[in-house]
Amino acid sequence: METSPRKRIVILGAGFAGLYAALELDRSVAGDPAVEVLLINPQNFLVFTPMLHEVASGSLDPSSIVVPIRQVLRRVQLLQAETTAVDFEARTVTTVHGLERQTRVLHFDYLLLAAGSQTRFPPALRRHVHGMKTIHDALLLRSWLIELLERAELEDNPERRRALLTIVVAGGGFSGVETISAINDFLRDVARHYPRALAEAPALLLVESNSRLLPSFEPALSAYTESRLRAAGIDVRLDTRVAAYDGRILTLDASGESPAPNSLAAHTLIWTAGVAPSPLIESLPLAKEMGRIVVDANMAVPGHDGVWACGDCAAIADPDGKPYPPTAQHAVRQGRHVGANIAAAVRGQVSKIRPFHYRMLGQSAAIGRQRAVASVLGVKFSGFAAWLFWRSAYLFMLPRLDRKLRVFLQWTLEMCFARDTVQLLTVHSVSSGRLEELLDSARAAESASAGAAAEVREDRISDQTVTVR
Amino acid sequence: METSPRKRIVILGAGFAGLYAALELDRSVAGDPAVEVLLINPQNFLVFTPMLHEVASGSLDPSSIVVPIRQVLRRVQLLQAETTAVDFEARTVTTVHGLERQTRVLHFDYLLLAAGSQTRFPPALRRHVHGMKTIHDALLLRSWLIELLERAELEDNPERRRALLTIVVAGGGFSGVETISAINDFLRDVARHYPRALAEAPALLLVESNSRLLPSFEPALSAYTESRLRAAGIDVRLDTRVAAYDGRILTLDASGESPAPNSLAAHTLIWTAGVAPSPLIESLPLAKEMGRIVVDANMAVPGHDGVWACGDCAAIADPDGKPYPPTAQHAVRQGRHVGANIAAAVRGQVSKIRPFHYRMLGQSAAIGRQRAVASVLGVKFSGFAAWLFWRSAYLFMLPRLDRKLRVFLQWTLEMCFARDTVQLLTVHSVSSGRLEELLDSARAAESASAGAAAEVREDRISDQTVTVR
Repeated sequence: METSPRKRIVILGAGFAGLYAALELDRSVAGDPAVEVLLINPQNFLVFTPMLHEVASGSLDPSSIVVPIRQVLRRVQLLQAETTAVDFEARTVTTVHGLERQTRVLHFDYLLLAAGSQTRFPPALRRHVHGMKTIHDALLLRSWLIELLERAELEDNPERRRALLTIVVAGGGFSGVETISAINDFLRDVARHYPRALAEAPALLLVESNSRLLPSFEPALSAYTESRLRAAGIDVRLDTRVAAYDGRILTLDASGESPAPNSLAAHTLIWTAGVAPSPLIESLPLAKEMGRIVVDANMAVPGHDGVWACGDCAAIADPDGKPYPPTAQHAVRQGRHVGANIAAAVRGQVSKIRPFHYRMLGQSAAIGRQRAVASVLGVKFSGFAAWLFWRSAYLFMLPRLDRKLRVFLQWTLEMCFARDTVQLLTVHSVSSGRLEELLDSARAAESASAGAAAEVREDRISDQTVTVR
Repeated sequence: METSPRKRIVILGAGFAGLYAALELDRSVAGDPAVEVLLINPQNFLVFTPMLHEVASGSLDPSSIVVPIRQVLRRVQLLQAETTAVDFEARTVTTVHGLERQTRVLHFDYLLLAAGSQTRFPPALRRHVHGMKTIHDALLLRSWLIELLERAELEDNPERRRALLTIVVAGGGFSGVETISAINDFLRDVARHYPRALAEAPALLLVESNSRLLPSFEPALSAYTESRLRAAGIDVRLDTRVAAYDGRILTLDASGESPAPNSLAAHTLIWTAGVAPSPLIESLPLAKEMGRIVVDANMAVPGHDGVWACGDCAAIADPDGKPYPPTAQHAVRQGRHVGANIAAAVRGQVSKIRPFHYRMLGQSAAIGRQRAVASVLGVKFSGFAAWLFWRSAYLFMLPRLDRKLRVFLQWTLEMCFARDTVQLLTVHSVSSGRLEELLDSARAAESASAGAAAEVREDRISDQTVTVR
């Protein structure tokens, strides 16, 4: 006998959009015994992506810029699982979790799609490029850079040494500019520990298909950024695309007249250009615009009662009818706003469901050597003052006091002590022992579950806390 | 034309013994232009193993307890490579490095064998057990514990939930006692974030084949440790061995009469019992005692002029004729001492080559809940005071001021803020993308190099800095 079945809100994704929606609901309807809120995400943490390049360059420990989701939520339940399907007719989501890839089907009354986005890697290049979007990307990149230095230190052939230390970043947006600047600073700081590898300066290239860097900023700040990067020894190639890369030889395709060679030996290509929807969003039978789910001004999905979408995976029109950009700043506001709208819908207070409007406060990008560019409420500034602003602003925005303290202390220690050259992650360390066995099990389970994808088991979280209908 | 070829000292291994020998030589003969010192190690860092269990339980970041070797050496050169063979006739060592497993043959005039030891895993169990000796072991164990909690939180079946949270540690020495205590503290601290998984207390077992824990301590401290662990809810099984484990079902073999069941479902077995020589040491045609290289009182290898050995891989007789135990405390002293002896040999000051004598200052083990046992210069103490001693003593011994500050700050933050539940390393994160490709390349190179092991290339580090004869 079911007594007063609870209304269930399911949030898919705990990036900035999904987590801030969950936080909003945690404060409001999640306290109502007739409502339950589930947050489904493959990781149990949020990465504070604006500081990711500082992990890649070793300035910050990864644990300092990740927010443990369970510690910030009191009533919303986190399910650490991947979502593999949504059935809008049956109003269910299908998830898999664990090494054995156990399947679970969960009913929803309200659904928030906040699955974010991913980098759009050219398929032919995928296996050969580093990403720079997840905490693992940053950790792997850091260890990889040190691996290159260690190998170059043992390399007699100057040509091979040069190829080892030719590092190319594709994409001149935030991530690309901040990543190549951080790598450049890191290599300069550790040069004295690698006298052979860094006897010559490493070759750093930034490749951008547009005619300027940081296209979301004013042209003057783009020009300043370009000149600072060039002064720091970074080879900036505008109006240029990566035509091919096989892990060793990179071919560039410059639309303008370029005197520079268009083919070079490089062991590292870091891909930051382009945004693609997550595979889950791609699979959903919903109207989309450039891969993003079309929603109304309230962030509700038209034609699907109780289904909402926000963040990078949703195309929310700004007052001019253009979609808001897929940035953390917007995702946080959209998450909070849609959380309030869903709470109003759950309570039947339709008049409290309000359209989303947000005017960006400003933006700032770190460009290396204690310099940044910033544009805040129409005021542009750059250089050391902008860098201090960058650090203060992001330290303020980083969630949780313990994280703020950790980051602040690490920044302080870094000013007093030399930069680290520890290579924590070696391929050898991963490819031997227990982890390798776990990887093999995971692969086996993945192929098994792909084979038996049809056999989906109805599952319950527990009789007490969750009722699956 | 070779003008005054330099004398080359090669140190194999940068554990406590090898690194402290290198530090000693860095201060003495490495400054002599006629001498060069090479330190060969697969990693470019030393792990401060006494604090390893604090990484496994998330109290400390891994970067805080690793010492970057390049930053502590000024003149000794580090080669990040594995040593695969030593030829005492030709006086060469063979190394491999990099993803492509490049081979290199290096001549030596003086050789210090300091390759350490490893855990002696029963071969039948190897694939199913976690180790607790390297920084990766600690990182993997931490992520694994959180993975278990996340899975248990989603598990409806109470029996399966219990198996997920049954954690067994084999070995009641330092590592076993400190590891299970740290895990117990961690699980208790995070219990409120996993209301379903930790509704019942997790089952923690410590299995020791001897009749008491911490056999290197006085029996009274062993008894105190046992009673504190039991009071903390840990099931201590003395006179008991692990008979079998298949990753799911553990079978115990108790020599005494035991009322407890000898078979149980457990997802985790952490193996800390037993010490084995490294494969390199095992392959060497030298006299050994329990797998350790027999040396004279000066740590020279008899019958091999210019070859020395120290640390875990050497059997150095104490005044009673018994070998010194394989601990960090002894390895540090042996490293410094053999470094001075080698410097004397290089300088031809034979009278300055002195036998090694060391009387242990004391020892201390953390046993959880802010308690420890300690025995210093014959004085025994335990409880909170011993725990304060443990922390202070190891903080003092941790090399480098920046590390001391980091650890101190993290300990301080931990007292003010809640324990973290972030699972940084998920199997999914490792098994997808760039890292997987690197792993595949590494495996391919490994099988290729195994096939063509005979093709060894004579290699030079550079004409300027190293002359290979």
